[in-house]
Amino acid sequence: MACIFCDIASGKLPASLVYERDDFLAFLDKKPLFRGHVLLVPRTHVATMTDLPSELAAKIFPVAQAIARAVESAMEAEGSFVAINNRVSQSVPHLHMHIVPRRKGDGLKGFFWPRTKYASGQEMDDVAARIRERI
Amino acid sequence: MACIFCDIASGKLPASLVYERDDFLAFLDKKPLFRGHVLLVPRTHVATMTDLPSELAAKIFPVAQAIARAVESAMEAEGSFVAINNRVSQSVPHLHMHIVPRRKGDGLKGFFWPRTKYASGQEMDDVAARIRERI
Repeated sequence: MACIFCDIASGKLPASLVYERDDFLAFLDKKPLFRGHVLLVPRTHVATMTDLPSELAAKIFPVAQAIARAVESAMEAEGSFVAINNRVSQSVPHLHMHIVPRRKGDGLKGFFWPRTKYASGQEMDDVAARIRERI
Repeated sequence: MACIFCDIASGKLPASLVYERDDFLAFLDKKPLFRGHVLLVPRTHVATMTDLPSELAAKIFPVAQAIARAVESAMEAEGSFVAINNRVSQSVPHLHMHIVPRRKGDGLKGFFWPRTKYASGQEMDDVAARIRERI
């Protein structure tokens, strides 16, 4: 099964790499939200975030921190947006963490958080209990 | 300095908790993107993702995995969206990871990824080099 991120990891496909170590690599998204938009991926094929083995799960966040710092600095950003889409809205079925430079007024804010509401405190409690008992 | 997430962590403010351990807690966002939208926060006050100390940075992703699994299962979701806003679009200046259940056609996709383009491969290489040299 062809996977473009596996092909980038193996060197078969070119990419604008920003980070490459044993476990992870990071490269520019070709269709960025904003210039400097990086994708951080595990070198081994893992479909979604919950599939990442515990050894790598302990390592990925420190790498993401280092990349977020570098992206903000390199792009002279005022902040960053870090996100993972699991299955829904996930374009490539190989876990990838988006690390995107942000600026105030860059246009992402308005349409990004279309909030809804809980009907009642009771509904909130019910939803919380349902999640809690599955952890 | 008042911080509502510190107040939730200390028990001063109520919240619909879904997870509570020594280092992290998680609770429902009161204005969810979708029902079952959880916020995962470190118990200690840390402003943004890059401020999280390395000891906690190694622990947060495994906790997020457990919560994402539980949110997807409890809400009978088809996937999930996990995100951190650093400074820009960050409503509370205490690091929080959004963990949101997703369904196909839930309306988030269309307005969520307004992509742009690099003018050339050269521009991409330049941007990658700028980030790379800061990691």
